[in-house]
Amino acid sequence: MLKEMLQNVRKCGPLIHNITNYVTVNDCANILLACGGSPIMADDIGEVEEITTICGGLNINIGTLNGRTIPSMLMAGKRANELGHPVVLDPVGAGASALRTETAYRLLEQVQFAVIRGNISEIKTLANGKGTTKGVDADVADTVTRETLPQAVAFAKAFAQKTGAVIAITGAIDIVADAHRAYCIENGHPMMSTVTGTGCQLSAMTAAYVTANPDTKLEAVAAAVCAMGICGEIAHERLSPMDGNVSYRNYIIDAVCHLDGETLERRAKYQIM
Amino acid sequence: MLKEMLQNVRKCGPLIHNITNYVTVNDCANILLACGGSPIMADDIGEVEEITTICGGLNINIGTLNGRTIPSMLMAGKRANELGHPVVLDPVGAGASALRTETAYRLLEQVQFAVIRGNISEIKTLANGKGTTKGVDADVADTVTRETLPQAVAFAKAFAQKTGAVIAITGAIDIVADAHRAYCIENGHPMMSTVTGTGCQLSAMTAAYVTANPDTKLEAVAAAVCAMGICGEIAHERLSPMDGNVSYRNYIIDAVCHLDGETLERRAKYQIM
Amino acid sequence: MLKEMLQNVRKCGPLIHNITNYVTVNDCANILLACGGSPIMADDIGEVEEITTICGGLNINIGTLNGRTIPSMLMAGKRANELGHPVVLDPVGAGASALRTETAYRLLEQVQFAVIRGNISEIKTLANGKGTTKGVDADVADTVTRETLPQAVAFAKAFAQKTGAVIAITGAIDIVADAHRAYCIENGHPMMSTVTGTGCQLSAMTAAYVTANPDTKLEAVAAAVCAMGICGEIAHERLSPMDGNVSYRNYIIDAVCHLDGETLERRAKYQIM
Repeated sequence: MLKEMLQNVRKCGPLIHNITNYVTVNDCANILLACGGSPIMADDIGEVEEITTICGGLNINIGTLNGRTIPSMLMAGKRANELGHPVVLDPVGAGASALRTETAYRLLEQVQFAVIRGNISEIKTLANGKGTTKGVDADVADTVTRETLPQAVAFAKAFAQKTGAVIAITGAIDIVADAHRAYCIENGHPMMSTVTGTGCQLSAMTAAYVTANPDTKLEAVAAAVCAMGICGEIAHERLSPMDGNVSYRNYIIDAVCHLDGETLERRAKYQIM
Repeated sequence: MLKEMLQNVRKCGPLIHNITNYVTVNDCANILLACGGSPIMADDIGEVEEITTICGGLNINIGTLNGRTIPSMLMAGKRANELGHPVVLDPVGAGASALRTETAYRLLEQVQFAVIRGNISEIKTLANGKGTTKGVDADVADTVTRETLPQAVAFAKAFAQKTGAVIAITGAIDIVADAHRAYCIENGHPMMSTVTGTGCQLSAMTAAYVTANPDTKLEAVAAAVCAMGICGEIAHERLSPMDGNVSYRNYIIDAVCHLDGETLERRAKYQIM
Repeated sequence: MLKEMLQNVRKCGPLIHNITNYVTVNDCANILLACGGSPIMADDIGEVEEITTICGGLNINIGTLNGRTIPSMLMAGKRANELGHPVVLDPVGAGASALRTETAYRLLEQVQFAVIRGNISEIKTLANGKGTTKGVDADVADTVTRETLPQAVAFAKAFAQKTGAVIAITGAIDIVADAHRAYCIENGHPMMSTVTGTGCQLSAMTAAYVTANPDTKLEAVAAAVCAMGICGEIAHERLSPMDGNVSYRNYIIDAVCHLDGETLERRAKYQIM
């Protein structure tokens, strides 16, 4: 099943409109190309509706949001909704400032998201304003462990129910949930947190996956999350002693280039709850 | 002849003012350093005239244009014209939105460009509003093949005649034309299209080449286009089985660092039409 | 002593707020992670005070300053001062335009910096308006050599005295000075100047070092500067024949990942004047 998700991305080559931050934007563009999609970045209010129209999906990332781009996010999101294009939200740093939190709320109110992907603190902030956050990283107090997993899964399903979106909470254990089912995924490597923007990259790739698999969104997001984790593992195996976080970043995206459906299926480690 | 073009870049170390997109800006800066130039990025209306004045050439790329930077592009372009500095236009995504198309038109009306470099869809849009475009990539329907080459060359020469600029249409076969002569170049590798911003990088490098070779612009642009293609080939030869598009990007710019005039001359594959 | 500086960064994991340019921002984020800190980038006037409040230190880099971000820099700087957080200034291109020079002056007037790091031309511009500059690179006429070192050290100490900041002037020989003492550092490799943004990266890392070592700022900055230089050396030793400036960039940040206190102490080459 995950296999088909990946293959559909390579077959369709979905064009993804990204309104994203300037920190990790180059990596987002390259991972979209690596997985078989195409990126276009455009954030001016004067063109976002048109750009979204020619694309298949939209990825909104608030990592370096500002007064100029927030209205563009809202406008592009609404237009994508009208067209039935899937929209992904990456609420980077929600909880770290009122501007981020409130912008995320406004986006949730005005745009129907297909997927919301963030760390546990960001998602808790969106769900109930109670997440704590250490800048753009999840707070340790929020971390999902095997002990707290059932509770976190219930939380994710409830938030999926409320928002109508697939919820992807990524961390040591990733949860990908709709209102009824949750994939609990244990791919990945702790070193991924030493690379800036692996979350942003995953959100961009997720947009390609849901765009190419509109009728099986939950599986599509699960496939994207497994793919990212597996590529983190493959890239880690490739590290030589002098390689550090930047070579690791390069190897992760390289691995996305080479990942095929069989490897994805074989290496995916998840349970459905 | 191409050899001297490259050597002049290394000798002069041209300082290039870039008003460019935030997606590929880091790669543009590094490729400028790699080829022997120096980059400066500045896009505020309050400083673009001064920055252009201290530079030798200007590179305008509309990849993430916005209401704040469009006036800066126009102002910097006019100032560069007053000073006789060559200006390169990269009309990223012209045809994908009215904002991009109209901005490209305004730039063409108000600024005399030394070089316009884009894919065939973008250049067709500029020339006659008829190019189609798949976001920032050329439409398949527009692709230049050996069969359609004579027609594309005639088109490029006519647009060069009309604009007074050297026209560089890059794709599987690249065309670099002024009103009278065209270099048809077959260097490069298809995998270059899996790296975001190889076009942007080439535009930045082209600005360095024309700045260092003001009296032989056509040859300078041809040399830059051949150099990029050859570096794409060298980088491709260097790929190991696990390398993907990001390592490829790195190797291309690395190859630009090492490229010498002799290699450029020897490996350049072109005919003049 | 330098050893402890590095170890404190790894121990504290300082969260650094960066208002920086979009050219080298990804490398700044990754080098912060590599050295043991955490980055957050935020430049909207609506959130910079809050973001600075949750961080330990602030890094202001004017590399692509604009009308929107300049007020954010001032506001964040003042807030950091109120909280006693160290603030680093990287006056990229001061002297290259009135906007850059005047913005640097305004920042100096309104914000108390813990560290000011730039090339000799930029620092001369700040100190007495007399530096010349070749875009974002130091002018050759300004270069610090062994012959001009005593004079440059006196200049750095005087400017440290005047500003109350640790002054870091980086180049072939680096000077890190407070009003009374100066570290003259000879680590590094000339090839570092072929990578865009090694200065920006150093400023970001310096912010992490001073934040983790608030009571020994001079030593903290000296340690950061030595660390960057040593990593430039280690990365250079690692280069294979086909590697160029982009692989070098990757290897430098990789080396920062692996640098330990012992290696820093052993390889640091400095004299105190």
